[in-house]
Amino acid sequence: MSNLRVIAFDADDTLWVNEPIFTEAQERCKAVLEPYVKAEVLETQLYQTEIRNLKLFGYGIKGFMLSMIETAIELSEGKVSGAEIQQLIDLGKEMLQHPVQLLPNVAETIEQLGQTYELMIVTKGDLFDQESKIARSGIADYFSKVEIVSEKDEKNYASILKRNQINPDEFMMVGNSLKSDILPVCKIGARAVHIPFHITWAHETVELHHVEGISYQELADISLLPALLKES
Amino acid sequence: MSNLRVIAFDADDTLWVNEPIFTEAQERCKAVLEPYVKAEVLETQLYQTEIRNLKLFGYGIKGFMLSMIETAIELSEGKVSGAEIQQLIDLGKEMLQHPVQLLPNVAETIEQLGQTYELMIVTKGDLFDQESKIARSGIADYFSKVEIVSEKDEKNYASILKRNQINPDEFMMVGNSLKSDILPVCKIGARAVHIPFHITWAHETVELHHVEGISYQELADISLLPALLKES
Repeated sequence: MSNLRVIAFDADDTLWVNEPIFTEAQERCKAVLEPYVKAEVLETQLYQTEIRNLKLFGYGIKGFMLSMIETAIELSEGKVSGAEIQQLIDLGKEMLQHPVQLLPNVAETIEQLGQTYELMIVTKGDLFDQESKIARSGIADYFSKVEIVSEKDEKNYASILKRNQINPDEFMMVGNSLKSDILPVCKIGARAVHIPFHITWAHETVELHHVEGISYQELADISLLPALLKES
Repeated sequence: MSNLRVIAFDADDTLWVNEPIFTEAQERCKAVLEPYVKAEVLETQLYQTEIRNLKLFGYGIKGFMLSMIETAIELSEGKVSGAEIQQLIDLGKEMLQHPVQLLPNVAETIEQLGQTYELMIVTKGDLFDQESKIARSGIADYFSKVEIVSEKDEKNYASILKRNQINPDEFMMVGNSLKSDILPVCKIGARAVHIPFHITWAHETVELHHVEGISYQELADISLLPALLKES
């Protein structure tokens, strides 16, 4: 008999679309800076700038905007114009206001699971931006708790469980990122279900995976979660 | 007999210096943009840009950096150079890495109060930046809970109390901002003590103030807090 009581969901690319918004912004950034730099060079350099700035900026769109601007200045050797930088800022502002687009089957599944379990959101990134997306998602009311953290590691999961008085055997995390949603959760003795984003195959069964000595289940779609929970 | 059990502290300009870091950055921004714009014009416009962007960026240094860049482009009519914008970014990065300078008497008072009360930090702003400052403050271990919120209003205070199972009569907030630390806390039936930042006078007594029909106590310095708590 399972003790499961609380199911926590990652937000970006688990409940709603996120990564494609960054990809699209990057394409538009390439177009703006086309007079100065080749697309491939920009992509590599932007990534390197983001990584370099991560310890100062953390995750999120505002940090991405600043890294875009910095990369533009560097790669254009300072020749990028004020108007072009403003285009990059405007592009970032559009990202911040992008409609929240739920992934398929999310609304129905969340509604169904909310009848049996306590639901949480555990997401990382910019507090202000994440709160705004949750508020605009249309499904905020199904989640009794929202935890926005700067990093999803074992330490932060353990303190989330502690402060919400949840035992590891009562907790399941559902998310698209092995590194952030699955491995640290399994390592503190709770259960995690991986739902990869953008999978090109569709199977209807649960796959059992093993990474770093840890076992976790993988689903192709969130709609398969209620059936998995009934089995276990 | 008071039921007080939990004392929460605002962070910026209550536990450590913050506002002067922004003021200094603004002065350096004026110097960078001196070829294009008069200092007074920049100050007014920067403020207006910040207010306009607040609903998109929230509070914090990254939003401030983006508003500085936007203001620079606008006021220079696009003539600001890439190198100058990089100077603004570097200035913001310095702000993000600024040493955390505790205000006078904070360390001793927090240590003393921690022996009797449960201590919390309730601060607003950028999650990543606030966590970084708390970690670097040297006094993090005295606080059993840290709540970083996007806005300090009645709703958020009420949910902080609820999720930490604190009754309003068990809670006191200490901070420098009437709007964020005092009025919303009094409105939900808890107690608040105002310690204004940068006061130019020094009195050793508690002053009772009344604003919007709400009464709260004001202290000139955090070191006066233990004595006030003994009285009440």
